[in-house]
Amino acid sequence: MSEVKNTHAPVGSIDRFSRQIFQNAGVDSRSSDAATRAMLHGSIHGVDSHGIRLLAHYVKAFQGGRLNKQPKITITQKRSGTTVLDADNAHGAVGAFAAIEHAIGNAQVAGIAAVAIQNTSHFGPAGAFSKAAADAGMIALVFGNSDGFVRLFDGAEPFHGTNPISVAVPSGQGNPWLLDMATSSVPFNRVELHQSLQRDLPRGVASDSDGGDTTDPFCAEMLAPLGGSDFGFKGAALGGVAEIFSAVLTGMKLSPDIAPMAGPDFLRAREMGAFVIVMDPVAFVAAPLVEAGMTRYLALLRGSKPRAGQSVMAPGDREWARAAHRQVTGIPLDPITVTNFSQLAEDYKVKLPWHTGPS
Amino acid sequence: MSEVKNTHAPVGSIDRFSRQIFQNAGVDSRSSDAATRAMLHGSIHGVDSHGIRLLAHYVKAFQGGRLNKQPKITITQKRSGTTVLDADNAHGAVGAFAAIEHAIGNAQVAGIAAVAIQNTSHFGPAGAFSKAAADAGMIALVFGNSDGFVRLFDGAEPFHGTNPISVAVPSGQGNPWLLDMATSSVPFNRVELHQSLQRDLPRGVASDSDGGDTTDPFCAEMLAPLGGSDFGFKGAALGGVAEIFSAVLTGMKLSPDIAPMAGPDFLRAREMGAFVIVMDPVAFVAAPLVEAGMTRYLALLRGSKPRAGQSVMAPGDREWARAAHRQVTGIPLDPITVTNFSQLAEDYKVKLPWHTGPS
Repeated sequence: MSEVKNTHAPVGSIDRFSRQIFQNAGVDSRSSDAATRAMLHGSIHGVDSHGIRLLAHYVKAFQGGRLNKQPKITITQKRSGTTVLDADNAHGAVGAFAAIEHAIGNAQVAGIAAVAIQNTSHFGPAGAFSKAAADAGMIALVFGNSDGFVRLFDGAEPFHGTNPISVAVPSGQGNPWLLDMATSSVPFNRVELHQSLQRDLPRGVASDSDGGDTTDPFCAEMLAPLGGSDFGFKGAALGGVAEIFSAVLTGMKLSPDIAPMAGPDFLRAREMGAFVIVMDPVAFVAAPLVEAGMTRYLALLRGSKPRAGQSVMAPGDREWARAAHRQVTGIPLDPITVTNFSQLAEDYKVKLPWHTGPS
Repeated sequence: MSEVKNTHAPVGSIDRFSRQIFQNAGVDSRSSDAATRAMLHGSIHGVDSHGIRLLAHYVKAFQGGRLNKQPKITITQKRSGTTVLDADNAHGAVGAFAAIEHAIGNAQVAGIAAVAIQNTSHFGPAGAFSKAAADAGMIALVFGNSDGFVRLFDGAEPFHGTNPISVAVPSGQGNPWLLDMATSSVPFNRVELHQSLQRDLPRGVASDSDGGDTTDPFCAEMLAPLGGSDFGFKGAALGGVAEIFSAVLTGMKLSPDIAPMAGPDFLRAREMGAFVIVMDPVAFVAAPLVEAGMTRYLALLRGSKPRAGQSVMAPGDREWARAAHRQVTGIPLDPITVTNFSQLAEDYKVKLPWHTGPS
């Protein structure tokens, strides 16, 4: 999503708008809170594809019945370090935040814990959940799958979803070290953006209907795995890790079997899984050693000689800078989201999060 | 390494040669066994960069004192799921196999377990250790770092090692699903190979002294992270995961601080770390569900529509095919390895693993 200059709204106003819409739509407060937090993580940090633009989509999924407005989460402790969490077809963020919270508790005792999430749905930005663990002093790995958009290496049809992997590590200096990546090079909405801009795509990120590389966004029928034509076997395999953990270890649907996020079916639950691992960073060596190591790593990394005119950043640094900016300037809202918000405001009798009168 | 047709040797002969050399060099049987197994994993599966060509290097490291010929492994159980294994400057494969074995035992009880390996060294192909877990019915994630070869995203000096990540999952059908990847696109010996062949490198895999992309192998001063100039922030961050787990959680050296593998110092231990996580795949949902999921996943994957003239393979499939071939044809040995083997045979009074007389 490119930033559209015309409409911005303050973070707090969007937060209230989202919660009021969910409340008036009959969504329970836990689901509203989790979904709003996840979307705002995306919007604040510049991950607009997984930001507040998803609000209208989620409301549609709640109203259709795909998502459960009043889920009853069931947690089954299988062994001391492993848990199955049945999210009862909740919004995906409900299951993911609950899994992180439960895994943190187990990892505080055992040092490491994993939670397999069943009967969940699209959870938004994976980094919202790993960051929640890092904010509590824990390392987290978060995996998800989704309906198929990405071909395999040497493949010619969509197979994996953009299957995210996120890893967060407390830095001891405020914001964590945060990786949040799709295992494709780009998300599909990058293709749509380049269509609207009539601009070529980067090489090796999208493929035509025969699986061949294309830079023409109008010929892009699917995404290519990270690594492109030469090294896409690595991206495809990383997508496979997310797939196996999210679908096989949970007994849930594989990407090629998942009903499309965009519908047309908004009635039935999508039977998706997700997976988290949490580790206590001081469950191996003493805290001062870990802190010193992380501090030195980040100092060396940020001080590494850059390419001319560039700077070297730690994973997450770009996002923290954007968050600082957007806390001041507000969240940019693209035209479709503005239209959707206006419709939601009317349907659910909620005041829009931006000034609509003469300023 | 390209295959050199002239010299091949049977797997069993190389195995015996390696063990006899180590024995005559005063290396204990546990170290000899671990190092030989790891190198042969590489050679059998076509990962020649981490194969038997390393034998002469390892002998030099043992004789110099960098590696301990008679290590005493110390295992400290920190919490029920987390362990620190001090490898006493053993060959890296000793610590890695021992860590996998210990983590399997813990994961059989707790469902998931991690081992931080201290005072280890180059372990060879990470897939050798994850595969050992998968062969025992377990999922494993293996991480390592090494001396710096790979620039950061927008960086212009070597920083991370080629920091491998390997994940193995039992398939229920013989060989596991096996990812074993460097977090650069290529290993540095690919650059050396292209120098000797005077052939251009693929785009975006290597950089000149200013961090700029180069396809000229003679201008390549460092490697680029997986994802190249557009998406190398993903490869660099994956390298960072391996770095943090291997160095920070173990209190060992960061890649930029590790003495070069190639020397000149072969006297001092390199103070490296490594890290493994093992999960019992049936510690979440019932075994038949996991087996059915993995079977369906692999069937869908291998049946996914290929690009014209190509075939779609699961991670590891190319390696199993090569292993089947090499079990018959033997292991190809490049000219430098042949020379090194001849010197080792003379120094340690061991018979060469190939026929040297008239055939």
